[in-house]
Amino acid sequence: MSDSPAPDTSPTGTDDPLSDAQIQEYRAEINRLDEEILAAVKRRTQISRAVGKARMGSGGTRLVHTREVAIINQFREELGEEGPELAAILLRLGRGRLG
Amino acid sequence: MSDSPAPDTSPTGTDDPLSDAQIQEYRAEINRLDEEILAAVKRRTQISRAVGKARMGSGGTRLVHTREVAIINQFREELGEEGPELAAILLRLGRGRLG
Repeated sequence: MSDSPAPDTSPTGTDDPLSDAQIQEYRAEINRLDEEILAAVKRRTQISRAVGKARMGSGGTRLVHTREVAIINQFREELGEEGPELAAILLRLGRGRLG
Repeated sequence: MSDSPAPDTSPTGTDDPLSDAQIQEYRAEINRLDEEILAAVKRRTQISRAVGKARMGSGGTRLVHTREVAIINQFREELGEEGPELAAILLRLGRGRLG
């Protein structure tokens, strides 16, 4: 499901009403961004699996190592140390289950 | 930098010209999605750090555990087993460096 996680029930962790309102607003934006991230990741996964199939269907390899390395490096440049881990998840999703 | 990773130099892993063209097209879309993912993740990180500051500045806690659990569950529902790992990266980025 695509509903935001419990937007009205999670405590904000502050008793200050002004901060509370501001935090609720920030959270709404984070929820929107999470939806955006999830949609893009799912679309990326579909396409990446299609690439693997197209490549194997034409007698090629399922993975192209240089391309994966370039993506990992790009994510490191953009996000720092967490970047390669995020890239690795995207690459694993794109491979899908074997068998 | 925001350039796509080596779009013209990576081998496609196939010798078939039709598949090669199709794979190049797919890759261009993956590169666009990666830009979208990176931009959303960076924006999310900024906002999440602002939330932590606002909360601490008003005498609250830096993290709200129930909210983090809800996000992790949402990512699992949407992406399966890789979901919680992706959520954990986003949550770590949002905490930023201590000190």
